[in-house]
Amino acid sequence: MGAGLVGSLLSLYLVKRGYKVTVYERRMDMRQHLIEGGRSINLALSNRGIAALHEVGLGDLLKQNSIPMHGRMMHDEKGKLNFQPYGKTGQFINSVSRGGLNMVLISEAERHGVEFLFEHRCVNIDFEKTEIAFQHHNAVRHRTHDVIIGADGAFSAVRGAMQITDRFEYSQSYIEHGYKELRIPPGEDGKPLLDTNALHIWPRESFMLIALPNPDATFTCTLFLPVEGPVSFQQLDKPEAIQQFFEKEFPDAVPLMPTLQEDFRDNAMSSLVTVRCYPWCRNKTLLIGDAAHAIVPFFGQGMNAGFEDCRVLNALLDEYQDSWKRVLPRFQELRKPDADAIAQLALDNFVEMRDLVADADFLLRKKIEAKLNELYPTRWIPFYSMVTFQENIRYSEALSIGQKQKKIMDDVMRKPGIEANWTSLDFEEIVNQLG
Amino acid sequence: MGAGLVGSLLSLYLVKRGYKVTVYERRMDMRQHLIEGGRSINLALSNRGIAALHEVGLGDLLKQNSIPMHGRMMHDEKGKLNFQPYGKTGQFINSVSRGGLNMVLISEAERHGVEFLFEHRCVNIDFEKTEIAFQHHNAVRHRTHDVIIGADGAFSAVRGAMQITDRFEYSQSYIEHGYKELRIPPGEDGKPLLDTNALHIWPRESFMLIALPNPDATFTCTLFLPVEGPVSFQQLDKPEAIQQFFEKEFPDAVPLMPTLQEDFRDNAMSSLVTVRCYPWCRNKTLLIGDAAHAIVPFFGQGMNAGFEDCRVLNALLDEYQDSWKRVLPRFQELRKPDADAIAQLALDNFVEMRDLVADADFLLRKKIEAKLNELYPTRWIPFYSMVTFQENIRYSEALSIGQKQKKIMDDVMRKPGIEANWTSLDFEEIVNQLG
Repeated sequence: MGAGLVGSLLSLYLVKRGYKVTVYERRMDMRQHLIEGGRSINLALSNRGIAALHEVGLGDLLKQNSIPMHGRMMHDEKGKLNFQPYGKTGQFINSVSRGGLNMVLISEAERHGVEFLFEHRCVNIDFEKTEIAFQHHNAVRHRTHDVIIGADGAFSAVRGAMQITDRFEYSQSYIEHGYKELRIPPGEDGKPLLDTNALHIWPRESFMLIALPNPDATFTCTLFLPVEGPVSFQQLDKPEAIQQFFEKEFPDAVPLMPTLQEDFRDNAMSSLVTVRCYPWCRNKTLLIGDAAHAIVPFFGQGMNAGFEDCRVLNALLDEYQDSWKRVLPRFQELRKPDADAIAQLALDNFVEMRDLVADADFLLRKKIEAKLNELYPTRWIPFYSMVTFQENIRYSEALSIGQKQKKIMDDVMRKPGIEANWTSLDFEEIVNQLG
Repeated sequence: MGAGLVGSLLSLYLVKRGYKVTVYERRMDMRQHLIEGGRSINLALSNRGIAALHEVGLGDLLKQNSIPMHGRMMHDEKGKLNFQPYGKTGQFINSVSRGGLNMVLISEAERHGVEFLFEHRCVNIDFEKTEIAFQHHNAVRHRTHDVIIGADGAFSAVRGAMQITDRFEYSQSYIEHGYKELRIPPGEDGKPLLDTNALHIWPRESFMLIALPNPDATFTCTLFLPVEGPVSFQQLDKPEAIQQFFEKEFPDAVPLMPTLQEDFRDNAMSSLVTVRCYPWCRNKTLLIGDAAHAIVPFFGQGMNAGFEDCRVLNALLDEYQDSWKRVLPRFQELRKPDADAIAQLALDNFVEMRDLVADADFLLRKKIEAKLNELYPTRWIPFYSMVTFQENIRYSEALSIGQKQKKIMDDVMRKPGIEANWTSLDFEEIVNQLG
């Protein structure tokens, strides 16, 4: 269920294993119709997602359609820039077009024999019979399958059917911030108006603006702001208020945004939800991707986590010789702690992005950790790198190592005169604390 | 929506205010058809619920159809009894038949002009239009109303429609215990086999059996037991295992339960869910009762809280001269903290019921608090009494006072030799600490 990024990728994995795969999608075929608004236009693809794309043979294609972002470019209130690399030289994340990647995945899956049924809305699931009731135009029909996989997103219909089964744990929780997408067009010479090799951030503590580069020399900006309150979307209800807010807070961005007023008016504000649930399977129906664990976007891991789900599921099918009866329970047991970990990390990283990144203490901490990593490349991997660049470290493992690192670094940062004399720290002693 | 206890009572309140009221109910009319299994047969009605029944003129009728329970009758592993009064002399809770009370409420509402439409299932709500889409037999029809109130229980369809609206906070969470209902018939002389003036408890720390009296001289027993694990429903899969378990744990109950094996086999195990959500209203549609705040049964407050919702809503309609636009937001603001409080208290009280009630420390604590209440009847009201017998203390207020009392009593219980010399405590000093 669902021809989004995760559903399409999974169908490709499965058809390559020799399965007969049908994908039901509520919406129209995005290759022939404009994609609905409200979803983010570009996404940050990193190692976990790339590993999965490589497994289905799409690694190279990917390289041609993404823009590497080597670090964060911070914009302060006066427009002053400060670049912070994400990792070591050669480590970067990738700005990719959601729609573009999705269409490639659908076409590639179709080419391998996957059947896509668009405008087929799931209205119910019979978990005992592994039967889907779907609505196509005005008719409701039923079809049974060997296995049903719900990859139908944060508002999953498959999960909706699961929610009323016995002892299904479920929560959906919104953060106080909403978001709105805006646009920076190319300059008059057709060239990008900002450095394309970075993810741009205007951190303002209680809110932030970010911008990601697109292949057409534009940038997609996203404003994250509380929905209500003294500084909020609610307050930005008039063109003057919008203009004043942007000029005060993002003075260097305003001249790059000639369609700010129109974009602000025309683009809807969207909300940011975290969905947690368990179990993920009932009999032979499984939830995967956002349907199982929708997260906020602040670690750039939503799509990557979903792609990693596909990779893990595929590995289990190898391990258990395609015995779905054994694979499905094993998948949820294995993967649930990782989903919980990245959900929490994504929430925590919002604070880091909008607040700490502009903080001197935070920057010194990053410097010391970079040094530790340089001296002990396998023993001290900075937390952001574990999550983003180390696809073989589980999210839950990264979280637990990260907590230890944080405790050690808190102690280091308390040392008197640390700003001046950090280069003379006993780095060996520090790394030994990690065990 | 919903002709259960809360929906029927609310319809009566509203028709008495002069509204034209229609109640849609998914099930058949319970006055003509046997009620579905799985729901508890009897309930503990206490002051909050009674206050509401009095307001709609059903207070007296109630008295004739309920059995007063003045305290807990504890049964230990050897069948030894120990009675603990719930409050002061004359304070009691009432065992009432769910079905009986529900039928009275429906008939009384109908008599006052409420229209009941049974076998009408809500399939969707249009919150902008305040329009219900309902399915009756095989046809789906639509009807708009001035106000829609979802009193359709823990698995509310109205809430289901609300759940996919923007920024709706929702969680459903199950405890590890399930429950199963069993039966103690009358004796050969037609008389009850246990004391009818008590709620019987067989507390066994990780599980418990309880029994409530019915007007027909039977008792309805409920076994609360983990669903899985070493001592669990999962383990009780054979008649011998069931018999052995009951004989070991509830030796004095077994001779009173001649149909234990049949009841155990025929009655389904049910689960216990806590539902929390917010907001409770969207435009002119409101959630109330279990639809807004389903709780576990261990404080005997589920129905009472739902009836109190009706009482609070009615009082707000008085206060705001039936301006629903003002009443609906005010209702949720006022009532949400109380719903959260009783949800937590109900979970906490499970530990007390199955574990602490058999504990010497706990009993001494109760004795000291009874003394405090005797000396300072308005200044120190035991926690259980605040929740159960003081309908004018809000649940959230009771929770906050109860937390203070607990802290004070923890200190008192730490005094050396407290078991022997508690009568010589400085009670004035203790009650003063409460402020």
